[in-house]
Amino acid sequence: MVLADQLRMTLDGKWRHVREQSRKELNGFALLADPSLTPDEACDRALEQMKLLVPTGVPGAGFRKENGGGGDPGMGVTGIEMLAQFDLSLMVKAGVQWGLFGGAIENLGTKRHHEAYIPALINLDLLGCFAMTETGHGSDVQNIETTATYDIETEEFVINSPTPSSRKDYIGGAAKHATSAAVFAQLLTKGEGHGVHCFVVPIRTSKGKDMPGVTTSDCGYKGGLAGVDNGRIMFDDVRIPRDNLLNRYGNVAHDGTYTSPVDNVNRRFFTMLGTLVRGRVSVGGSASAAAQVALSIAGRYALKRKQFAAGDGEEVVIMDYRLHQRRLLPLMARSYAYQFAQNQLIARMDKLQTDVEPDPLHQRELEGRAAGLKALQTWHATRTIQECREACGGAGYLTENRLTTLKGDTDVFTTFEGDNHVLLQLVAKELLTSYAEDVRGLDPFGMVRFVAESVADVVKERTAAAQLIQRLIDARPGDSDSEQSLLDRGTQLSLFEDREQHVLETGARRLQRAGKDKEKAFEIFNNAQDHVVKAGRVHIDRVVLEAFTAGIARCEDPEAQALLRDVCDLYALSIIEEDKAWFMEHKRLTATRSKAVTSEVNNLLEKLRPYTLILIEGFAVPEESLGASMLVD
Amino acid sequence: MVLADQLRMTLDGKWRHVREQSRKELNGFALLADPSLTPDEACDRALEQMKLLVPTGVPGAGFRKENGGGGDPGMGVTGIEMLAQFDLSLMVKAGVQWGLFGGAIENLGTKRHHEAYIPALINLDLLGCFAMTETGHGSDVQNIETTATYDIETEEFVINSPTPSSRKDYIGGAAKHATSAAVFAQLLTKGEGHGVHCFVVPIRTSKGKDMPGVTTSDCGYKGGLAGVDNGRIMFDDVRIPRDNLLNRYGNVAHDGTYTSPVDNVNRRFFTMLGTLVRGRVSVGGSASAAAQVALSIAGRYALKRKQFAAGDGEEVVIMDYRLHQRRLLPLMARSYAYQFAQNQLIARMDKLQTDVEPDPLHQRELEGRAAGLKALQTWHATRTIQECREACGGAGYLTENRLTTLKGDTDVFTTFEGDNHVLLQLVAKELLTSYAEDVRGLDPFGMVRFVAESVADVVKERTAAAQLIQRLIDARPGDSDSEQSLLDRGTQLSLFEDREQHVLETGARRLQRAGKDKEKAFEIFNNAQDHVVKAGRVHIDRVVLEAFTAGIARCEDPEAQALLRDVCDLYALSIIEEDKAWFMEHKRLTATRSKAVTSEVNNLLEKLRPYTLILIEGFAVPEESLGASMLVD
Repeated sequence: MVLADQLRMTLDGKWRHVREQSRKELNGFALLADPSLTPDEACDRALEQMKLLVPTGVPGAGFRKENGGGGDPGMGVTGIEMLAQFDLSLMVKAGVQWGLFGGAIENLGTKRHHEAYIPALINLDLLGCFAMTETGHGSDVQNIETTATYDIETEEFVINSPTPSSRKDYIGGAAKHATSAAVFAQLLTKGEGHGVHCFVVPIRTSKGKDMPGVTTSDCGYKGGLAGVDNGRIMFDDVRIPRDNLLNRYGNVAHDGTYTSPVDNVNRRFFTMLGTLVRGRVSVGGSASAAAQVALSIAGRYALKRKQFAAGDGEEVVIMDYRLHQRRLLPLMARSYAYQFAQNQLIARMDKLQTDVEPDPLHQRELEGRAAGLKALQTWHATRTIQECREACGGAGYLTENRLTTLKGDTDVFTTFEGDNHVLLQLVAKELLTSYAEDVRGLDPFGMVRFVAESVADVVKERTAAAQLIQRLIDARPGDSDSEQSLLDRGTQLSLFEDREQHVLETGARRLQRAGKDKEKAFEIFNNAQDHVVKAGRVHIDRVVLEAFTAGIARCEDPEAQALLRDVCDLYALSIIEEDKAWFMEHKRLTATRSKAVTSEVNNLLEKLRPYTLILIEGFAVPEESLGASMLVD
Repeated sequence: MVLADQLRMTLDGKWRHVREQSRKELNGFALLADPSLTPDEACDRALEQMKLLVPTGVPGAGFRKENGGGGDPGMGVTGIEMLAQFDLSLMVKAGVQWGLFGGAIENLGTKRHHEAYIPALINLDLLGCFAMTETGHGSDVQNIETTATYDIETEEFVINSPTPSSRKDYIGGAAKHATSAAVFAQLLTKGEGHGVHCFVVPIRTSKGKDMPGVTTSDCGYKGGLAGVDNGRIMFDDVRIPRDNLLNRYGNVAHDGTYTSPVDNVNRRFFTMLGTLVRGRVSVGGSASAAAQVALSIAGRYALKRKQFAAGDGEEVVIMDYRLHQRRLLPLMARSYAYQFAQNQLIARMDKLQTDVEPDPLHQRELEGRAAGLKALQTWHATRTIQECREACGGAGYLTENRLTTLKGDTDVFTTFEGDNHVLLQLVAKELLTSYAEDVRGLDPFGMVRFVAESVADVVKERTAAAQLIQRLIDARPGDSDSEQSLLDRGTQLSLFEDREQHVLETGARRLQRAGKDKEKAFEIFNNAQDHVVKAGRVHIDRVVLEAFTAGIARCEDPEAQALLRDVCDLYALSIIEEDKAWFMEHKRLTATRSKAVTSEVNNLLEKLRPYTLILIEGFAVPEESLGASMLVD
């Protein structure tokens, strides 16, 4: 097998068969976006494309077998992620239907909901949307204003939007296609509130007319995702049967009595949200997929495009310029790294979601990593696609070369399914409070009361292939300053781990002061906010490096393994290079050694330059589906 | 006068009257983009808008009085820059017509061209385009392939596109509206080549039909700038009269004899290009204007939007979060800094272009600064608009809130009018070769043969208000490590200057080795390429800080001056913070002092937070023209 195939095999991970199947099938569906369509036409086209997916088995894969699904959550999210290589509108629309709407029904509903809705939503007889976000509350979902008040007389819930800011906003599917919505609202019964719950609410007739009391509207033009019919919904005392409450985590009896298996209202809300983790896993993976497409386009162009003559008078292929290598190769290395981390995340999610009794701590770790990886992967996509666009000059600006479409479509990924800055604070919060039970569901500021005395143990928990990682760290050649050791994996792992521990510990100490000084609590928290975000980021950096390390160990081909080791070095050292000021400020690197990091990165660029095409082929984006006319001779 | 007005007055600079006039007039023209138009409709609309501009006097302002213009180049570029606050398609289309096409006629042509074309192009009787870039040669314009061969028999030039890569590409106006093109082509006469010259070539009839031998086509959908009709042109032995050679820098007599006032072919080409500097000045200024609009939108939203409750239960205005301050305020400070630098650049350009005998060295300095500032301002715009988009969450993704349009429209600015990476190498080249005459027109690599023995003098040349800068540097409180001194302007200026000198000197030493070792010359150059780019960047950083310093000195209101000093501190320290690893690696900052930089930035954020709205008002983007529906209650 040739080297590129070995890379692809390794990078494809456990759901390789799904990826292989998708590459073949999707390529035949001619899914690439058509810029000449009106938004309305584009939405209809995306819906038609979804119908093509139904027979592939991907849409139902993630649902439980007893509900008519495939019982393979890993396949479900991998299948969605693969769509992102072709068209992001399709990916989002599919993600809304089968991931968010379907996920809410399956995870928050009970048998009666499963039977009534799941088979129908898998085969698109029922089109749904996921109505959580409101105009006034996006990140702070727990404080949405929509109400669902139980009417004991008629045994119905009354759904209402009391204020302009309670309008459901940006809801994919709400502008046109969805006939039902999974609506998140404050449940009120017998004059008492029980927090946010989810309800199935019919919003329009099969002919597309708004249901009585429901007013939908279109969000209009967007920065991308023309094929997604994002809309707004207002409810004016809309009545739904009591049975439409998705009642797995909270039930209302005929007489209005509320019961729940989870007493604490915060914990209940976040338990519900936790079951919907698949959304973030899909968005992060899809962002990475889009970044790989962009790198495949810009990388292939850079191997073909020549500009300026060197000393010998011959024009130079632009990939031969160090500057161009600097621009593209570290991003490729990072894309490799995130794919390994994504594969590990999917495997963990799949395991937890098929376990009979999932471990609650593992569930929270999963949520934290899904949130953090989503943040880093989506920022990586935004940055990478931008760099690729610029690296192709004027050609990169033409829609016929796809990069601007990728850019516009993925742009919202950094803020939907959780704003990245909020998500990284969430990651940090879990670590800084050592997953304390009572902290769930608090706003970022709220964590200050629960910061753990010691966070050291959190870091000591290896995130992947624990023994291997420990062995590598133990075997590192001391803390000597020799240049060589920067290429030692144990040294790199240790630098990442040490940075995480230090940032967490010092962050905890800062926040502990806030816990003790109520007057100045917000001020102290606020001053430490960038520190907290950094804690989330460096934790995920470590998770990613450990996943990469474990992934290489699973590669069986020595040549591919050697190449991946270089790619991993480039990933690790370019992360360190970006944060070298921190390492120097905290005496982890001397000035000399810091300069050596940059030299080593440059050495790696030179070493990897001849493998550029092979690394691109490892991403295995089908050439025919790149959709860049400048690559066609 | 209130504080915001004082800021505006200072920031508006010498062409304040033009800015004031534009704000009033343009606001009345309803110029904001309409996303529902087809590209074809959008282009027609932009042309109609251009017609509204003619009576304002801005289009003709930049042309010389003897040619029927206003003799006020500063007004010309300021007027174009102001368009960028309203619609970037209009700005680009206007820039192509009056700046590039008109500029080529005026600067490269002679009396007969001026009389024949300038009055007509000012009032839009003649629509032109600027056909320089080719599919195969964008950055390396000197090696374009289009030929203009003199035919002695008919006394005509024959314009030809010999290869697919010689196609003129991305040419604004070429797809639809332009009837004439300023075509850059290799001039050949009597079997000899004389380098690139510019020719006026009619490309289509007034009815829009391609002229015989001319084939135009549309570049199709783009990442933005829907109102610009970018197109391609191929020439199949198109014949034009000898008179259509713009012959200021090179003439062909009836008998085919070539003459030129500039003997050296490289110097001749770059002398021609140098006269077209206005394009880069306009693009840089327009990018900054767009960034100011984005900051005005995101800043106002951040002062209004609340999310999450603090300790007291009240929801917090998001501008009160340190993280949000970190995201927006340093970018605002940078926007202030670039505006001062832009004002200085325009003033210098205006002076040089109205001098009877412009100093050639000053001309080259101007070109260098225009190139470098264009690079930093356009990257700043891309980054700032992206950050603003994300800082507004889902609302930021809706076209109705303008940010995505600003983003898409300005995106190409980083690569047109010179790719930014190439431009920064150009800046560095001039500095590293001490403006050696023979180096003009060489590719980046070519500079290695001419690197000066000492580049120290280049840095010693103050770029603005020399005496003031020197006084501040002399008065700095020693090199002590006290935190206080980081807020001392002299200390900051000295850090910037010292960094520039060190980067230039070490860069020169690396390249000198390449000059001495022909075998390894390209390798040595290539290894130093990121170093070279950094040299260009840090030079411009210093130019900007000096311009800011000089600008503050011209402010007469003590309160505004004090505020601007804080903004300047934030600019200077956030530049140092981003590069603090360099300062530590090169022993310019200790670890402790490096940490203090971050603390001081945070202190400044806290100090400037109450002035957010005033700083936005200082940009003076008319509120009605922000075009963001989320800001309307």
